[in-house]
Amino acid sequence: MAAPASPLVQRILDGDPRALARACTLVENRSAQAADLLKSAFPHTGHAFTVGITGSPGAGKSTLTSALISELRRAGQRVAVVAVDPSSPFSGGAILGDRIRMACHHDDAGVFIRSMATRGALGGLAPTTHDLALLLDAAGFDWILIETVGVGQDEIDVARLAPATAVVLAPGMGDDVQAIKAGILEIADVFVLNKADQPGAARLEQDMHEWPRPLVKTVATTADGLPELLAALETLRAALPPHRTELHWAARLRQMFAERAVARLDANQVDAAARRIAGRECDPYTIIEEWLKV
Amino acid sequence: MAAPASPLVQRILDGDPRALARACTLVENRSAQAADLLKSAFPHTGHAFTVGITGSPGAGKSTLTSALISELRRAGQRVAVVAVDPSSPFSGGAILGDRIRMACHHDDAGVFIRSMATRGALGGLAPTTHDLALLLDAAGFDWILIETVGVGQDEIDVARLAPATAVVLAPGMGDDVQAIKAGILEIADVFVLNKADQPGAARLEQDMHEWPRPLVKTVATTADGLPELLAALETLRAALPPHRTELHWAARLRQMFAERAVARLDANQVDAAARRIAGRECDPYTIIEEWLKV
Repeated sequence: MAAPASPLVQRILDGDPRALARACTLVENRSAQAADLLKSAFPHTGHAFTVGITGSPGAGKSTLTSALISELRRAGQRVAVVAVDPSSPFSGGAILGDRIRMACHHDDAGVFIRSMATRGALGGLAPTTHDLALLLDAAGFDWILIETVGVGQDEIDVARLAPATAVVLAPGMGDDVQAIKAGILEIADVFVLNKADQPGAARLEQDMHEWPRPLVKTVATTADGLPELLAALETLRAALPPHRTELHWAARLRQMFAERAVARLDANQVDAAARRIAGRECDPYTIIEEWLKV
Repeated sequence: MAAPASPLVQRILDGDPRALARACTLVENRSAQAADLLKSAFPHTGHAFTVGITGSPGAGKSTLTSALISELRRAGQRVAVVAVDPSSPFSGGAILGDRIRMACHHDDAGVFIRSMATRGALGGLAPTTHDLALLLDAAGFDWILIETVGVGQDEIDVARLAPATAVVLAPGMGDDVQAIKAGILEIADVFVLNKADQPGAARLEQDMHEWPRPLVKTVATTADGLPELLAALETLRAALPPHRTELHWAARLRQMFAERAVARLDANQVDAAARRIAGRECDPYTIIEEWLKV
């Protein structure tokens, strides 16, 4: 752990935003240099408080994240955001909207925003997101916000793997959405009841009483409730049990291992096995056992 | 591949629904017998046509699946369904609704319905679902419908890994949902425009013109368009390129390998490594490399 930082990491430690952006790209693309880069950066991490922000589509996560950035900046904190886009390159509207909302922080050197596509290598979303968070941590940001849509195990994993997780709710979501939402209620360290000025907010607040987690009411568009949200997050940070960090790393190690193990499979070997299985010459379970023996 | 079937598999081949249900439970729980069971069943698979049915929350997938079952039964086909619940045990409403909709097939021996929770082992959703589909294939069903909500990579993987995938759309979904939906448009072999009698259907149909896939209009609640949907699926089945099956198996092998590799990690070893990482005594990347060397 005492090895000197690589030149690129040294520039990140020195606060060079272009070096940071370049490193993020290397990590996101899983380039050959990424592993050495992350190893070199790792000893310089551990300062930032990383918060996962998730919730149903339409709950106002992006607007809330933007308002939270403003609140943190007022408190003199440097903030980095990893925004996980839920959609493919084919979608445009929602992402463009988010970008416009974020643009008001564009000229602030104390804010760094990185958008990430969710598509890509098998199971790679959560590992890559948290690798990016480590780079941002090494770069000296005080807070790292990971914003992700709260639907689907992969997206939920992204938020769950953060040391603290805020789940954003809003009144007026349909029944089906409620059903999905159930899966993310359990990962919340704090609930944010956004759009608290809209019809149904009082009832939603009442529904949430059964969950033993603090709830903060906000109207992200007007920044109402943002000081209270920041206070709740500060409380979480101060009270974070040490084993939470260890659980985080145990979960991350399993994900990283799965991803790297698959990446090392020989593509020709996989294709040949797939042909034999399709022809019912052998079964997939025996093949996997053979591969695991190597 | 010439080994005689295990006693439980033999009962499945003989059409015993209780044996099938028991085998499904063993596979879903990843019991010790599951691997031998699946190996023994595998040579008897390859007859069924497996269709993934996915789409946005609220598009009416469950009602459509139920209507498709009726249509297939009228055509003399035996149908099995694996319904992947998107939510935790904490949610109730939506799942109960689905169960009521499915109950009309309860007394029909030509229909087998299995509900699966999405929660559980890391990355295990798609492998387990498709292991279940293999059991249903061995049991002699002609069609296997895998119904899953189309949000999140894990859920989308379930549908994508089916040899054919129907993506269900409906008018009147919000913008944010549209953005999520984009990720699943690409995996469609056929689009189902459900709730085709509702406002906005014509416009949605027009929007879909850019996608080079057949589109069938349905009103699942009245079974309107169901014969056309079945015809479209039959066309798909007849035209399925052989390499599609090989691609399916290559993707499944990668998923199975990731899942089994992680399952073999020693929990104490993982926890010890997590503690060292949390204390910044070592970095996770070096640890993963060491584990992969073994």
